[in-house]
This record gives sequence, C-alpha cells and structure tokens, in this order.
Amino acid sequence: MLKFYYSKGSSALAAHILLLEVAADFAAIEVPIGQGSHQQADFLARNPKGRIPVLETPDGVITENPAILEYIAATHPASATLPNGIFAQSEARSLCAYLCATVHVAFAHLKRAPRWADTIAAQDDMRQVAPRNLAACAAYLDQCLRLGPWAMGSSYTYCDPYLFLIGHWLAAADVSLAPYERLVAHRDAMLARPATQAAMAAHDLD
Amino acid sequence: MLKFYYSKGSSALAAHILLLEVAADFAAIEVPIGQGSHQQADFLARNPKGRIPVLETPDGVITENPAILEYIAATHPASATLPNGIFAQSEARSLCAYLCATVHVAFAHLKRAPRWADTIAAQDDMRQVAPRNLAACAAYLDQCLRLGPWAMGSSYTYCDPYLFLIGHWLAAADVSLAPYERLVAHRDAMLARPATQAAMAAHDLD
Repeated sequence: MLKFYYSKGSSALAAHILLLEVAADFAAIEVPIGQGSHQQADFLARNPKGRIPVLETPDGVITENPAILEYIAATHPASATLPNGIFAQSEARSLCAYLCATVHVAFAHLKRAPRWADTIAAQDDMRQVAPRNLAACAAYLDQCLRLGPWAMGSSYTYCDPYLFLIGHWLAAADVSLAPYERLVAHRDAMLARPATQAAMAAHDLD
Repeated sequence: MLKFYYSKGSSALAAHILLLEVAADFAAIEVPIGQGSHQQADFLARNPKGRIPVLETPDGVITENPAILEYIAATHPASATLPNGIFAQSEARSLCAYLCATVHVAFAHLKRAPRWADTIAAQDDMRQVAPRNLAACAAYLDQCLRLGPWAMGSSYTYCDPYLFLIGHWLAAADVSLAPYERLVAHRDAMLARPATQAAMAAHDLD
C-alpha cells in the first residue's frame, strides 16, 4: 500500500487527484503545514527537505511533484495516464518541469517570499510582482499547449491534475482565469471528474 | 540528427556533457544569452519561453533540463545512463526536479533577480540571500544523496551532469564547495571524464 503525506490546499492536491483517478491502494496522511508539522522530526526523517507531498512506496520514499505524479501513472498502467513513447513522455516531463520550476515558483513568491529575501519591503515587492508572473505563465500555457481538452491532447494524463493547480495559484493571486479560454475549459473538464471532486473535498476546497 | 541550442556557461552545460557522454549525433548551435539571442523571433518560434537549452529531435522540440536529460538517456540505451526500473527512475526524477525547481531557482535569484521583484533594493536583498540558500542546498545534497561516487549510487546516470552544475552555481555565489566532501568527490569524478572536459571547453570554462 502507498502512503501519501499531504497538507490541505497545498500542491499535494495534484497527486491526491491522480491517486483517486487511478484507483490506487493508498492511505492519505495529513501533515498540516499551517501547524508546522512538516518541520517536525518524524516528518523530516521521511523527507529532510521538509516539503509536501511525499509518497511512501514499497521500495522507498519519493518526493517532488513531477516524480510522484509520473510514478503513480507508471505503476498503474491500466489507467493509461502515462503518455506512450519516449517523445510524448518527454513532452509531459517538460510541462511538469515548467509547472514545478516556473509556475509553482512564481506562486511561491506570493506565499513564501521569506525564502528568498529578508526584508519586509523586498518580500512585499515579490508579492506585488507574483500576479504578473502568474498571468504570464497562464498566457503561455493557454497559447502553447494543445489542450484538447487535456494538457497532452485528447487523452487525460498525469499532467492534468498538475495543470489544474494553476487555477488555484491564480485565484490566490487574485488573477482571473477567465481570459484563458483553454485553461477554463481544462478546469471545467477536471471539475466534472469524480476523482477531482473527491480530492477537493478531502482538501476542504469547493 | 539532434540540434542542441545552448548558451556558453548556462545550465545547458549539463545536457551538453550528456550528449558528448552518450556519443549522440548532434549539432550544437550557440544562442548567446548575453546578446539577447534567446529573445529573438527565430528562437522564440522554437521555444516561446525564451529559455536555454532546447533540444530539437526528429519528433519535435523538447525544453526544460530534466526532460532533455532523460530524453537523451532514454534514446541512448547503450550508454546505460537511465536508471533501471520505475522506482530508481523516480528517484532520478526527484533529484532532477529538486535541482531544477529549488537549486537552480536559488541560483537564479543571484543572476535573474528582476524576474521576481521590481525595486533595486529588493533585488539586492535577493542576491544577498541567494548564497545562503545555495549553501543549504549543497548541505542537503551532500548529506542525503548516496553519492557513491555518482548521484544515484555506483553508476553514472543522466543526473550526474546536472548535479555537476552545483559547483558552478556555488562558485558564482562565492560559496566554497570544500565543506561538502561528497560533492567535491563528485565534481572531481566528473572532471576526470573526457565528455565533461570537452563540454567545458565548448563553454569556455576551465
């Protein structure tokens, strides 16, 4: 059985959706970031980086969203959530790397500014710039992805729950998703799926 | 034949090393960031994100270091630079996601601070904090990786040229690599390989 460590409302929502989507045999264990649980010794023993999510597998621990998502897809082949072939898999990895290192990082400047600057003034500056960067990311994703309606084209893949987070990141920055028509269609397609609905309920999201 | 778009001294060094390591059939095309070539129309047509590196394959374009590196490894099986099995591959992806989204991002706050803040004071604050974050990343990598001597253990994988960049990122931040003994051993093992030496010469590094 898999053990999935998450915090409500965090980026762990993506893997949570995928675990439900592929009908994985897993236990979800809440590690509330708001209470600092991710910095306590028992959690740091699992992930010395002190970050959520963490997936404990029979072979060991996996951290980082792109790695966790692809692991879930690869170990549940019946779900057909892993693209076929090296090139399509590389495109999926490229999208996830962008979501992880550019889009999630843009969002983190809104919520975790003290990671990168010490003064309050600098942190406020970063929070002011974050919505602009998130809007630029949304524009890129909307224009360059072949959402049809899924991130990789006509089939749902492990990238889709990760792309779905952009709606939450934009909302947190008070940036409207409405101008990005393909992202709106993607969000609506995700919201129509029972796995998305169940994961959102587990995260107290509506 | 592959076409590899790079800028000297950039993070493209990692894929450049790997292309040489696996004896790939590729042409290297310089896109000097210092001259703004990555923001010109012909390059943006290849990668609308305007970032280096880019790998043009017979099937299409791949962007983002983790995706490019794994593609090179997966398409050159004789090189044995892709770990065996889903779990080991997931661990490799986890490392690359951390290098991409945490370590490279920590470095980017030194060199590309205007991405995330508008005022000079805020950008200076970020540049002051960057060495501290990079040192923390080096400490994590040194303690938690089973460098033996390679990133994933006893065999060289596509992660190694990426991990090798930490030496350059630390040097740019005036952080000494010396306290991190396993990272020093890793750097030395990398520097002993002809592919590393050839890629560094192509990037005018010594």
